[in-house]
Amino acid sequence: MSFYSLDMMLSALTEYNPLMPTDQFMPWLRTRREAHRFTIEQIRFRDLKDWFFEPSSGNLSHCTGRFFKIEGIWVETNYGCTARWSQPIIHQPEIGILGIIIKRVRGVLYFLMQAKMEPGNLNMVQLAPTVQATRSNFTQVHKGLKPRYLEYFLDGSRSRVVVDILQSEQGARFLRKRNRNIVIEIEDEIKVGDDFCWLTLGQIKNLILMDNIINMDARTVLSCIPFGDRGIENMEYGEAVSRAMSAGSRHTEGATVVYNAFCVQLFKSALRTAVSVHATEDIISWFTDLKFRYILEVERIPLKHVHEWVKTDEAIVHRDGRYFSVIAARVEADSREVPAWSQPLVKPREEGVVAFIVKPIDGVLHFLVQAKVEAGNFDVVEMAPTVQCLTGSYRQVPHSSRPPFLDYVLQARPEQVRHRTMQSEEGGRFLNEQNLNIIVEADEAFPEQEPEHYRWMTLNQLQNFIKYNNFVNVQARCLLSCLSFRNE
Amino acid sequence: MSFYSLDMMLSALTEYNPLMPTDQFMPWLRTRREAHRFTIEQIRFRDLKDWFFEPSSGNLSHCTGRFFKIEGIWVETNYGCTARWSQPIIHQPEIGILGIIIKRVRGVLYFLMQAKMEPGNLNMVQLAPTVQATRSNFTQVHKGLKPRYLEYFLDGSRSRVVVDILQSEQGARFLRKRNRNIVIEIEDEIKVGDDFCWLTLGQIKNLILMDNIINMDARTVLSCIPFGDRGIENMEYGEAVSRAMSAGSRHTEGATVVYNAFCVQLFKSALRTAVSVHATEDIISWFTDLKFRYILEVERIPLKHVHEWVKTDEAIVHRDGRYFSVIAARVEADSREVPAWSQPLVKPREEGVVAFIVKPIDGVLHFLVQAKVEAGNFDVVEMAPTVQCLTGSYRQVPHSSRPPFLDYVLQARPEQVRHRTMQSEEGGRFLNEQNLNIIVEADEAFPEQEPEHYRWMTLNQLQNFIKYNNFVNVQARCLLSCLSFRNE
Repeated sequence: MSFYSLDMMLSALTEYNPLMPTDQFMPWLRTRREAHRFTIEQIRFRDLKDWFFEPSSGNLSHCTGRFFKIEGIWVETNYGCTARWSQPIIHQPEIGILGIIIKRVRGVLYFLMQAKMEPGNLNMVQLAPTVQATRSNFTQVHKGLKPRYLEYFLDGSRSRVVVDILQSEQGARFLRKRNRNIVIEIEDEIKVGDDFCWLTLGQIKNLILMDNIINMDARTVLSCIPFGDRGIENMEYGEAVSRAMSAGSRHTEGATVVYNAFCVQLFKSALRTAVSVHATEDIISWFTDLKFRYILEVERIPLKHVHEWVKTDEAIVHRDGRYFSVIAARVEADSREVPAWSQPLVKPREEGVVAFIVKPIDGVLHFLVQAKVEAGNFDVVEMAPTVQCLTGSYRQVPHSSRPPFLDYVLQARPEQVRHRTMQSEEGGRFLNEQNLNIIVEADEAFPEQEPEHYRWMTLNQLQNFIKYNNFVNVQARCLLSCLSFRNE
Repeated sequence: MSFYSLDMMLSALTEYNPLMPTDQFMPWLRTRREAHRFTIEQIRFRDLKDWFFEPSSGNLSHCTGRFFKIEGIWVETNYGCTARWSQPIIHQPEIGILGIIIKRVRGVLYFLMQAKMEPGNLNMVQLAPTVQATRSNFTQVHKGLKPRYLEYFLDGSRSRVVVDILQSEQGARFLRKRNRNIVIEIEDEIKVGDDFCWLTLGQIKNLILMDNIINMDARTVLSCIPFGDRGIENMEYGEAVSRAMSAGSRHTEGATVVYNAFCVQLFKSALRTAVSVHATEDIISWFTDLKFRYILEVERIPLKHVHEWVKTDEAIVHRDGRYFSVIAARVEADSREVPAWSQPLVKPREEGVVAFIVKPIDGVLHFLVQAKVEAGNFDVVEMAPTVQCLTGSYRQVPHSSRPPFLDYVLQARPEQVRHRTMQSEEGGRFLNEQNLNIIVEADEAFPEQEPEHYRWMTLNQLQNFIKYNNFVNVQARCLLSCLSFRNE
């Protein structure tokens, strides 16, 4: 690894791309959607092929014992208002690979992205990392094709590692699930498959401004790319900003890059030299204290021992219809490693909201980060967005007991909204799940004083915590990936 | 937190202490040993008071369900040569506090240390942190006295936090056990109890040069203190070294401070600006890859289902007499929260070895760090010393199959040995356990090329990984605490 920060910034500021001109991307994606036949239909559990409820436990498992299982957990905690409960959860102890190949062409880094079908995807095909594979995939349990380009990630001699970190998945749905988020640079010539294309980071960032185009796996990998360290760590604000911006202007080939005040703020916040409200050691101490105080005991139990959940022929549902349900689906897709299969999927009750509130403090943009305990967390507490309501039915809750800052975010004036899209969760496990992703700049009146479970952090601090695994949760990471350093 | 690095360095270089002159410390410690009556005797399990074998599981538990339990684990892994085994393990899900209070007196930081009796201690009394308490201690399950000075750690308003990190304990003996390692600075006048004294870091470092004086809990807390960051991060080597050293000389009150070449090397290695063989991101990638490749499945099982271990009236032993045994002891100690009690203790088979090999590479001292999988690890792999043989009977193993680098360390010439002491493990759980702690400087011929599970790191990189929890294991941390920046 060498000095990637400026290179990444340059790619993020570049939209000109002779390999895939921006105006040709959506037609290309449409072609990919039309090139393959995809169907998905909900079926009864008994019609699942190769999946069955284990007689002794009631767990929903694959006949090989691989992929994932729907099991139960029993939770006891002193965090929040529910002291103990049981729930179904996805248990998938394997670490998967979410990998992006990048390549330098005439000084600019390009990302090899895949138009990938997942059964739960809205629009069926979204833009995914180069490789997205569970261990069961690439050890070929299902006897299908090996994922393309996988060999670059398994054989380190063919590439240079840029990012390589284990990152968590949704703690409310998965039990301590983690994936390897990896970005590698290659120099080889590489044959670009029909479902693949090279994009600049700037193009990808623009596509995240649209609903449900860039899938969750791509967003989490992108969030691990550091902008503020290595190579620009010793520069002053002004110098770093102007160097990045002049680099950006050079690569627009004629078009004018307009940097609004927010982008400049954002960039400053990404630099290591940014002055922060809290020292990193103080944030670690805050986190240590929360892990010390909150007890989270999670015990795996047989699915049939889960209380308050009911199994019908077609779904496992909460008795009051809350949270999510588990259903079964049959999928046909001629573009995947195996052409047809059936599998369980998790279907959310309704859309959720994930939001960051940001605010310039002492001239540097800060993010209001929430410490959140979730049952499936690897280490009790993770750093979450300011607002994260995924599984609840927050609309029906009276204002007085709604999550902190939710109303502030939903009632933000248009000029405060820095980002607002609908983004999908992982389509391999979740059926048509999308959540409102929103970044709101606080107004002057918004207090700098933090509630107990919240801390203001710079983007550089967040990116540093992302570098060490198990700090920043998947919702926060994916929302950070929506940040764009150019905004016209 | 503000700029502590130079302050810590200054304290580490200071031996002059009007509060506890160096030549009075050992007599004082002897007084403390003699001031109290301590007895420990091994008893039969049936004579344990308040501890019993649970009928259904065979687990050895306290009647309140608190403190700790001796349970079983079943382990499956693809690391090492044993693919599956079961063993007894200490299960103690509570996070304890290991806390040191420091105070600035005429510009120098002093550490409040406690002469503390633990039943398993060699010499019965060793020097401990100010507070060493499990949650059961300070929620007073045993209805004894509250640990002294605890209130400073529970009420943040009375102190300034210097270090506050969760750190792991022995992965071969404890199941995912962690403690809060915390150092706080106070300004209050504080009444110093009879068993307590103020020492400079330099005095403590000198005491670590003697066998079994500074207990394990103190050593792990001391290892968390950063020397190379904050306040000196932007200085050049020469400037930082000479500033620290001239500060050291000022505070010896007449005595000459001699810095040998190794101390200067060590100090350079502690600085953030030290040039390292591997970028930190590359080390994280190496660790990610190991966590990805090594499967470690650990399941809690009833103690009575553990294979190859036998329970007698007096001990739980491995059928071949290997590893360790679990025994019962009755303790009387008038200096503790409760005057008499009985408890299980873990008794090691024999002494072990922990060793770092260090080597200057490109002018900067590097430590050869081992990635080690242990069953009780919180996250599969932790960074261990170059050599760590605790539970094995390494002397009986033929040379060809002995752990890497063990022979090199044991056969090092005297002029290569930078540190060599016997140090104790935690006397609250382990009976008379001591291990050889040794730091060896590699000779010219020692290869820079690393085996797969080893990486060269600077002291600054190690201290950075210590800052984020669950990277550096307790043996490595304690061995690092033995490093002294002055060496006459």
